[in-house]
Amino acid sequence: MIRCLAAALAALLLATGSAPSSAADGHRLVIVDQDMFGPGGSNMNSVLMLLQAPDVDVLGIVVSSGDGWREEEIAQTLRMLELVGRPEVPVYAGAEFPLLNSAARMKAWERRYGPLVWKGAWTDSFGGQPRAEYHADPFLVPPLAAGPPSLKAQAESGVDFMIRTVHAHPGRVTLWMGGALTDLALASRLDPGLAAATRELVFMGGSFNPVAADNSFADEYAHSPRREFNMLWDAEAASAVLHEAWPRVVQIPVDPTTRTFFSKALYAEIGQAKTPVASYVARFGEGFPMWDELAAAVWLDPSLVKRSQKMLEDVAAGDGADYGSTLSWPLGRGPGLGEREVEVVQDVDVPRFERLTVKLLSAGRAPAR
Amino acid sequence: MIRCLAAALAALLLATGSAPSSAADGHRLVIVDQDMFGPGGSNMNSVLMLLQAPDVDVLGIVVSSGDGWREEEIAQTLRMLELVGRPEVPVYAGAEFPLLNSAARMKAWERRYGPLVWKGAWTDSFGGQPRAEYHADPFLVPPLAAGPPSLKAQAESGVDFMIRTVHAHPGRVTLWMGGALTDLALASRLDPGLAAATRELVFMGGSFNPVAADNSFADEYAHSPRREFNMLWDAEAASAVLHEAWPRVVQIPVDPTTRTFFSKALYAEIGQAKTPVASYVARFGEGFPMWDELAAAVWLDPSLVKRSQKMLEDVAAGDGADYGSTLSWPLGRGPGLGEREVEVVQDVDVPRFERLTVKLLSAGRAPAR
Repeated sequence: MIRCLAAALAALLLATGSAPSSAADGHRLVIVDQDMFGPGGSNMNSVLMLLQAPDVDVLGIVVSSGDGWREEEIAQTLRMLELVGRPEVPVYAGAEFPLLNSAARMKAWERRYGPLVWKGAWTDSFGGQPRAEYHADPFLVPPLAAGPPSLKAQAESGVDFMIRTVHAHPGRVTLWMGGALTDLALASRLDPGLAAATRELVFMGGSFNPVAADNSFADEYAHSPRREFNMLWDAEAASAVLHEAWPRVVQIPVDPTTRTFFSKALYAEIGQAKTPVASYVARFGEGFPMWDELAAAVWLDPSLVKRSQKMLEDVAAGDGADYGSTLSWPLGRGPGLGEREVEVVQDVDVPRFERLTVKLLSAGRAPAR
Repeated sequence: MIRCLAAALAALLLATGSAPSSAADGHRLVIVDQDMFGPGGSNMNSVLMLLQAPDVDVLGIVVSSGDGWREEEIAQTLRMLELVGRPEVPVYAGAEFPLLNSAARMKAWERRYGPLVWKGAWTDSFGGQPRAEYHADPFLVPPLAAGPPSLKAQAESGVDFMIRTVHAHPGRVTLWMGGALTDLALASRLDPGLAAATRELVFMGGSFNPVAADNSFADEYAHSPRREFNMLWDAEAASAVLHEAWPRVVQIPVDPTTRTFFSKALYAEIGQAKTPVASYVARFGEGFPMWDELAAAVWLDPSLVKRSQKMLEDVAAGDGADYGSTLSWPLGRGPGLGEREVEVVQDVDVPRFERLTVKLLSAGRAPAR
């Protein structure tokens, strides 16, 4: 009960922009930045895992375009929060568009370097078929499968929210990024002291050499092992962010996710719990590799990581074939242009990760709050 | 004896630019284009394997810069031919410099994208130490460990030789490229019909995802799996060549060579044969992965190939991080800019490959000729 009061107080205080939140009770503080494609799938599941973690305060959710367009994604997020009984979690609008990339630039790139499998909100066809979810108008919000939300997003921008909140808890806030890094690039340019004032940056994205899995999602990496969508959507932002002075950077690339998959059996197991979160997840869940779930899980429980490696890293920008590709160097062997040391998660304990996922998404904590 | 006469006649006829060579006896015809770093090592060993193959006529050796500078390499090649008793094999000068790349451009690239491990004749330091073999003057020929040659290279350029010789045997000549593809780019621009008039192009170079081996030579690919020196030395030439109308292209990338190594035991075994070739190889041999030996072997005996894959391919040029990197696409999924279907050798029978290497480099055929 004390926890519930603390969380409510925190939300109230944050909403008025005044004081530290539940920092006092020793909880881990995180700002979630995510693109939110659909009500089901990896993006939404991962945010729910963070919301459900008992020792974590999600200070706010910043939504930016990527897998989908921002306005539709915000509506999906608000509706999710309603359905799972977490209306107090504030939602902020991040960037609508990448710094430089665009649908037209991406099409020009494809004419030069070949068709892309996935280009997020720009994906007008998939597997040779027109894609039903595609709409060219970024601001269109089509009818949602989960229904329309009553909640509203905050008036403050996601970027201002990040800057304000990080400085309200110096050295304590983790920025957890599930999509492109555009918002962080914007925030870093507005506030050059942002990175150093955080606890750490954790991001899902990039790839090194994802191996073929027992599903088709790793296939596109066979010929482009270092090109991954979150970095491709806004390569310039990713490069900028990877040159900021983070105390620590943890990356969950595609590689360790190739051995994960959110199966129907997992969804069914979660659905048995009948909690609001479990019902939401089981109702809308889609079968994908657990890209973002893994990024949530290894932050929640670092002991899931079986192998990681520190290296220097950047993301290729420009007009070349490697636009959006992960660049890396051994420590001490980079170009020396301010590239950062990144701790790259390479292998995880998949069974324990699945158990944690089921546990978090089945738990009844949220509605009891 | 008939074979010896035929070969002598062929050399004579080719030298006068007049008529088909040993084509008549059904031998496979090959033009070897190679960079020739040092008297020992992979480059020279591979050329010796081709020279020793009983059913093959090496119509000439074109020497271009790459691992070393052309003038020094030509001297090494001529001296090798003297010592192994093959003075009739004509040697031609290929390109001294790449189309666009240069020592200065490579240094600028390194300042932007990090230090390279191997940059051929431009490698002024290695493993943090100044490199003894380095000389900034491309035209300097230092004293050779094998002694100075008496033989001379042909006056005709390697490019003219290629064009003339391919058209003398339409559809019969294999172009076997052990180094950069500069000479082929030059020849293709002089003669747009060259590629279609060959039998095939076989080249060693490029990389996809070489795995760590029990030696350190694959380490540099951990962070740059698609960047390989032969392509990097002249990325523009490689890209140009991969858009020409070859009837067939076979690539031996670094990948299958990571499980090969020319050990002291192999050199010792060859040395027991006491033939001129065996003595030369054993005397100067250096321990490297068998990069070019493998490219020779799979052309000589395609049954060594355990796995290969056809794909579309290009090499990245420009000023980006991926300069010189292998680009590939599944068949039918390329940008459609004239990129070629390449048969990429992915795995080989290493024990049989080693046996073939020992057999060819031990044999006494050459001196008996």
